[in-house]
Amino acid sequence: MKNTPTDPVPLLQDLIRCKSVTPAEGGALTYLENLLSTHGFVCQRLIFREAGTPDVENLFARIGSGSPHLCFAGHTDVVPEGIVESWTHQPFAAEIADGFVYGRGATDMKGSVAAFAGAAIDFVRNAGKFKGSISFLITGDEEGPAINGTVKVLQWMAENGHIPDHCIVGEPSCVETLGDTIKIGRRGSLSFTVTVEGKQGHAAYPHKADNPIPKLARFVDRIAHATLDEGNDHFDPSTLAVTTFDVGNPAGNVIPSRATVKFNIRFSPVHSFASLKTWVDEQIAVTRQEMGGTWTVSATEGADAFITEPGRFVGLVQDAVEHETGVLPKLSTSGGTSDARFVKDYCPVLEFGPTNATIHQTDERISIDELRATQAIYARIIADYFSAEL
Amino acid sequence: MKNTPTDPVPLLQDLIRCKSVTPAEGGALTYLENLLSTHGFVCQRLIFREAGTPDVENLFARIGSGSPHLCFAGHTDVVPEGIVESWTHQPFAAEIADGFVYGRGATDMKGSVAAFAGAAIDFVRNAGKFKGSISFLITGDEEGPAINGTVKVLQWMAENGHIPDHCIVGEPSCVETLGDTIKIGRRGSLSFTVTVEGKQGHAAYPHKADNPIPKLARFVDRIAHATLDEGNDHFDPSTLAVTTFDVGNPAGNVIPSRATVKFNIRFSPVHSFASLKTWVDEQIAVTRQEMGGTWTVSATEGADAFITEPGRFVGLVQDAVEHETGVLPKLSTSGGTSDARFVKDYCPVLEFGPTNATIHQTDERISIDELRATQAIYARIIADYFSAEL
Ligand SMILES: [Zn+2]
Ligand SMILES: [Zn+2]
Repeated sequence: MKNTPTDPVPLLQDLIRCKSVTPAEGGALTYLENLLSTHGFVCQRLIFREAGTPDVENLFARIGSGSPHLCFAGHTDVVPEGIVESWTHQPFAAEIADGFVYGRGATDMKGSVAAFAGAAIDFVRNAGKFKGSISFLITGDEEGPAINGTVKVLQWMAENGHIPDHCIVGEPSCVETLGDTIKIGRRGSLSFTVTVEGKQGHAAYPHKADNPIPKLARFVDRIAHATLDEGNDHFDPSTLAVTTFDVGNPAGNVIPSRATVKFNIRFSPVHSFASLKTWVDEQIAVTRQEMGGTWTVSATEGADAFITEPGRFVGLVQDAVEHETGVLPKLSTSGGTSDARFVKDYCPVLEFGPTNATIHQTDERISIDELRATQAIYARIIADYFSAEL
Repeated sequence: MKNTPTDPVPLLQDLIRCKSVTPAEGGALTYLENLLSTHGFVCQRLIFREAGTPDVENLFARIGSGSPHLCFAGHTDVVPEGIVESWTHQPFAAEIADGFVYGRGATDMKGSVAAFAGAAIDFVRNAGKFKGSISFLITGDEEGPAINGTVKVLQWMAENGHIPDHCIVGEPSCVETLGDTIKIGRRGSLSFTVTVEGKQGHAAYPHKADNPIPKLARFVDRIAHATLDEGNDHFDPSTLAVTTFDVGNPAGNVIPSRATVKFNIRFSPVHSFASLKTWVDEQIAVTRQEMGGTWTVSATEGADAFITEPGRFVGLVQDAVEHETGVLPKLSTSGGTSDARFVKDYCPVLEFGPTNATIHQTDERISIDELRATQAIYARIIADYFSAEL
């Protein structure tokens, strides 16, 4: 006989009332630790430090042992509330109005954390003993520099035999209605700074100078119109955006000696940091051959691109979502980065959570119906995961 | 029977000792006025004013009436002395050492003024009555904003029947040795600022933005390699120098809405301000057709290009120089602007004066031999001018 499902609403309210603006823990991890411990999870509080960044608290909680091991990854830290006076309901009061729970983190992502916790607790309670493990990887540094958070928890998990077989990141992935989107990958981001040095001179005697601006203009004209790829089933074509071009020469009669351009590439997994650096080097080489000049390039690596190819795990989540909502979720790779970019180095990962219309905004909120439906989806995913052979 | 030639050395010394750093008159024009009046010149002191600029004193002196009318145009103002301690001889002491007269303005251009004054005085004294006129257009605003100087003196001359048939500007035109160069024109200078407006957006979604940088890069690539002309006997090919390209966007994930480029064209008289503006408009139109964007362009007119085509006047001066120095002077149009750019609107004008190695520098100086040889050249020019039919 099944118990009544845990109601995620009070869980979410309790979490919202913990003022956990990054990097503050705010009591949220302690609350979660107590809740999960009560239901048999073995909890580890992990504090990571690095010079120049704030110390960050994290939580790893696991129940069961061995495979299959399903991990829920999330964060309890939230972005600042902004202008309090603009909120209809106090940002950390978790007030309920018109069927919504209001508060910072309601959708990003204390709502998902509460829903998955509720679902996991119910599963454990109903299943008794089960073959495999459920774990929580909860960081306090997702909205911050992301240095002392998920990355280091994963390293710790690897060192301690806790790497899961599959991971669900609870980021609010849906756009219009709950269930419409599962994120199975993200484009990567790589930024470049290219500087050309020439030779300063008087504008009246260009042949005695060596103007870097036309060299860099030729380069920009070349890269801005290059086709990096044609896209594929899961990714739009990769893009390149030139974000600035600067000389800063105030003297109208002087040819400057230096010009700098910066650009950013958003790319699908058909590329890598290394392949794109090679490509940029080639574009520079061709341009230098045509135009001369002394070129320097530096790259700043953002997130790497990744995809969890649709297969049994993605299909299981997709089916569960459709079953609970009647909506067949789109498999998306759009949007910014999340901690899924770190998890993907260890195991297949996807992101599923509620609609993201109010995240990071004034009056961030989630409807009680959506919160409970999210928990029901997670519950079905957990049930199917441990009854299926993946 | 001829008198002994006037020695220009004491004249130059007297002028150097007048501290006439722009816009100060420093006594230099008064000295010249007294000198020329004594020898029969009718002198006019002309003070011109304009809001936002200093008042400037100028001198117009003329002897004789009617044609042919030869004008000597020059200036008694000088650039500042710079660091006095760096001078071997005080900048306004007009000391003589090792056969040189030292001082600010020795070559630019009190030397020429003294030499032409000496030559004109001698000619007038020896010729007695002669058919035609000799005049001096001496400004105190050549090294300054050039607003209350030659331009306004010429307007006044036009209103008062003093426009000459030919003009020699005494700028130090020679490079290696006295006599090597006559300047018969100058390239023009025209500067442009071109701004492209697009639409700001996130670097991850270039298709939702409209990036102005590649548009402007294409434009730069186009204009920087355009051939404006092939040059001709008297002018090197016209040049275009892009002097700056600025966006100033510090956000590496943002596509900016605006980019600006500035460039300067140095052009021969085959072009004009109007024709070059049309050409730039055409380059913009072609680029806009290819790339879109909202384009604005503004032009800042520097000096117009001009040439005094070689003919009898130029030939007469060339012959006189060769006769006195044994050097056939090159007819040049190189270098920066001078007040000749204003005179050319009224009559044929050329520039001839001593070597310019020390102008605007510490220890500006002229050798006594060169100063006297310059006077001898001017004397021969005057004599030939009034004996020839031009
Ligand atoms: Zn989040
Ligand atoms: Zn000068």
